[in-house]
Amino acid sequence: MAKETQFVEQIADINADFPQWYTDVVLKTKMVDYGPVKGTMVIRPYGYAVWENIQKELNERFQRKGIQNAYFPLLIPMSYFTKEAEHVEGFAPEVAVVTHAGGEELSEPLAIRPTSETIIGTMMSKWVQSYRDLPLKVNQWCNVMRWEKTTRPFLRTSEFLWHEGHTAHSTEQEAEEFALTMLGVYQEFMENCLAIPVLTGRKTEKERFAGAVATYTMEAMMRDGKSLQSGTSHYLGQNFAKAFNIEFQNNEGELQPAYTTSFGVSTRLIGAIIMTHGDERGLVFPPVIAPIQCVIVPIAARKGGVIEKCEELKTELEKAGIRVTLDVSDNSPGWKFNEWEMKGVPVRIELGPRDIEAGKMLCARRDTLEKTEMPLENPAVIVKELLATMQKDMLESARKRRDGRIVYADDMQGILQGVENGNFVKAGWCGCRACEDKIKEETAATARVFAEGESAEKCAVCGEKAKHVIVYARAY
Amino acid sequence: MAKETQFVEQIADINADFPQWYTDVVLKTKMVDYGPVKGTMVIRPYGYAVWENIQKELNERFQRKGIQNAYFPLLIPMSYFTKEAEHVEGFAPEVAVVTHAGGEELSEPLAIRPTSETIIGTMMSKWVQSYRDLPLKVNQWCNVMRWEKTTRPFLRTSEFLWHEGHTAHSTEQEAEEFALTMLGVYQEFMENCLAIPVLTGRKTEKERFAGAVATYTMEAMMRDGKSLQSGTSHYLGQNFAKAFNIEFQNNEGELQPAYTTSFGVSTRLIGAIIMTHGDERGLVFPPVIAPIQCVIVPIAARKGGVIEKCEELKTELEKAGIRVTLDVSDNSPGWKFNEWEMKGVPVRIELGPRDIEAGKMLCARRDTLEKTEMPLENPAVIVKELLATMQKDMLESARKRRDGRIVYADDMQGILQGVENGNFVKAGWCGCRACEDKIKEETAATARVFAEGESAEKCAVCGEKAKHVIVYARAY
Repeated sequence: MAKETQFVEQIADINADFPQWYTDVVLKTKMVDYGPVKGTMVIRPYGYAVWENIQKELNERFQRKGIQNAYFPLLIPMSYFTKEAEHVEGFAPEVAVVTHAGGEELSEPLAIRPTSETIIGTMMSKWVQSYRDLPLKVNQWCNVMRWEKTTRPFLRTSEFLWHEGHTAHSTEQEAEEFALTMLGVYQEFMENCLAIPVLTGRKTEKERFAGAVATYTMEAMMRDGKSLQSGTSHYLGQNFAKAFNIEFQNNEGELQPAYTTSFGVSTRLIGAIIMTHGDERGLVFPPVIAPIQCVIVPIAARKGGVIEKCEELKTELEKAGIRVTLDVSDNSPGWKFNEWEMKGVPVRIELGPRDIEAGKMLCARRDTLEKTEMPLENPAVIVKELLATMQKDMLESARKRRDGRIVYADDMQGILQGVENGNFVKAGWCGCRACEDKIKEETAATARVFAEGESAEKCAVCGEKAKHVIVYARAY
Repeated sequence: MAKETQFVEQIADINADFPQWYTDVVLKTKMVDYGPVKGTMVIRPYGYAVWENIQKELNERFQRKGIQNAYFPLLIPMSYFTKEAEHVEGFAPEVAVVTHAGGEELSEPLAIRPTSETIIGTMMSKWVQSYRDLPLKVNQWCNVMRWEKTTRPFLRTSEFLWHEGHTAHSTEQEAEEFALTMLGVYQEFMENCLAIPVLTGRKTEKERFAGAVATYTMEAMMRDGKSLQSGTSHYLGQNFAKAFNIEFQNNEGELQPAYTTSFGVSTRLIGAIIMTHGDERGLVFPPVIAPIQCVIVPIAARKGGVIEKCEELKTELEKAGIRVTLDVSDNSPGWKFNEWEMKGVPVRIELGPRDIEAGKMLCARRDTLEKTEMPLENPAVIVKELLATMQKDMLESARKRRDGRIVYADDMQGILQGVENGNFVKAGWCGCRACEDKIKEETAATARVFAEGESAEKCAVCGEKAKHVIVYARAY
């Protein structure tokens, strides 16, 4: 029994020390490792498979919106950043700079892209001449670099992987609508693929993207009540179009700057999955993006016919498109249960001589830990149904958990208490920067997103008339 | 008519000026554009789609060989390169170096990876303890940077995209065999997916990868008779294992260094496709990796029912998994024919009122330019068959073309004449470096690959007894 519980003991208690639990889980399940350079990570196969599933799901959605994948250069002349005033202020402090190459000093230092508005804007200005060239919708999957002081695997690293979509439009309305369309695409993806409910809406001026007119965000609540900004979509107005000369001839024959947007999600989402669904036993993957959806554990594997039947079952599930593995290692069944639970595999099938004789299999759900005896007939149908149910249930359970932790506050004390108890706190705001700053200073919470459509009497800080309701939370 | 021929006129004559033809074709078909930093490229959607198809095909093959995708950091401490003596000598002159980040000078300069043996070796040394951890097989799809003096889109650029596979094994035999297995995987992929025949085999010591024991290469002949090194697989022996402490406990309980391999292909392959199959009208894509496999051009599109029938046809082909587009632009049919021919779409279907009435469609093959009338029944079956035939024919035709341009030579004059006429030249070699150097000096041709299994009387340079037969060619 000592051996069987060993895995569980290796992970810190999720309720007592959430940060340590996170570190334990990501390292011990071999999702990630630390890279040799400060703040970098190595995404190991078990983590990278999640990223590949995310890419597949998002690519399908992008294609339906007419977005085409492309690839833009990693290195951007430093001078490009200075063309958009807010943008350079926002990113210059985090940039990594190449000064030497090919054995010589460069005449102009080059930035490793922290984001690509500047270089994509430059290219768009070459490609866009007439309104017929619009809308132009491109996306790239790539690495970006932002030199961060404090880092944690997936959540905040100097280098990370992401996608960045960039579009140019002929009218303000079309561009702004498209930024919101992409926010909607993200939300649907978060809920249906990652089983993560998100609050969506506009960011305050203080929190918005450097150079944007409006930033729309998705905020997800982690197990500890903190918020994780999971993706953003920016309406950039004509800011970048003017800075980079993205001009087109409109249908009256006049030259005018285009309206642009950009939007992105990153490997951070892997952290969001872990911190939304994980439990005391380790990872819990939503079936749609699980690297392995089903593991078959043979019981009394040496008995004649057991392994053969397990192989048969595996082949049948595989044929149905289920990502399945069969654990034929020498470890005990109990050890295997713990290991695959820690790795968050949605469905475990236990199959032994008695099950086979009775024409049954035991199916265990990772989220609820329920075990159900099922007939061995049409196993693919059974497993697919179980995966679909689990996918839906995981979203509902995450939503309930989150909704139970959204509270209202009237004053600073209420906000402080709310976030200390691990809640999202809704409170009135007069709209002034000073009040927003003060909340951050005194509660370490930030304005995550406007609670659009809601209203409050007065600002929780200054007591003046409230213009908006804001969702405050501490954040990753 | 002037309008209809305009596209053709825009491309340089492939026979008169092949380099200009190449540049015209890649730019005008919107596969690629020049990036703002010297030697960089922007891969536009029409080029990137080819890369995505290459990735899909190779990923399936890697998976079957037990190789798992992962991601390793972009930045590598400069000191890592010095750990393997030959490796640093080979790559140091081409490296781009980050010296500043986050507003400060770094304590140690960081290299942007030119290749990742050093950082992956470092991680493998953490992950490998026992023979049970072996073989370890990882791959990453990523960008790499090599500062090049002369660059051309896809063929040689400062930054390019590639995959790099890295494996560690417990025995010499297993590792060397695996390097050859991957060469075989590449060859099958080149022939069946890209329709490019390749000569495969070992490189000379002079031409092998910096740090390898043996480099195996695939050499493809371009339209101008020059060779393009299309991919390499390296047996690294214990060189990197010793430099980076990839040590494991063997089954006798002793610690020993592992044996490693690495292998890669890059966006260069897109250049190989273009320069193998292209013709005076532009690109010709092998169906398996064509971004668009079939284009439908409506004839007399304004006549009732034509567009509807085209839409119907498109839906049916799409359902069958064919990558199809319907050109409903205002251009004339002739203009469209030229445009889609330049873009290399394998099959064009022309559909007008008379065809519809007769229950026929006109199918044009891009490679042979043949047009055939086909029934409108089961169009997906017809198009799929045509694509499959074309795929096979393109390989055969490329193979014939290449085989007709492999000649033998006995002396330096013969080699020079052979390569000047755009041939691969086979000639005897004594095995000494001086003779190899002399050939390069006098003919601008290099030893591309050993012609294994062949023999010759004497070295074409010094006249001494030949130990090997070498394939010489000028190369990209």
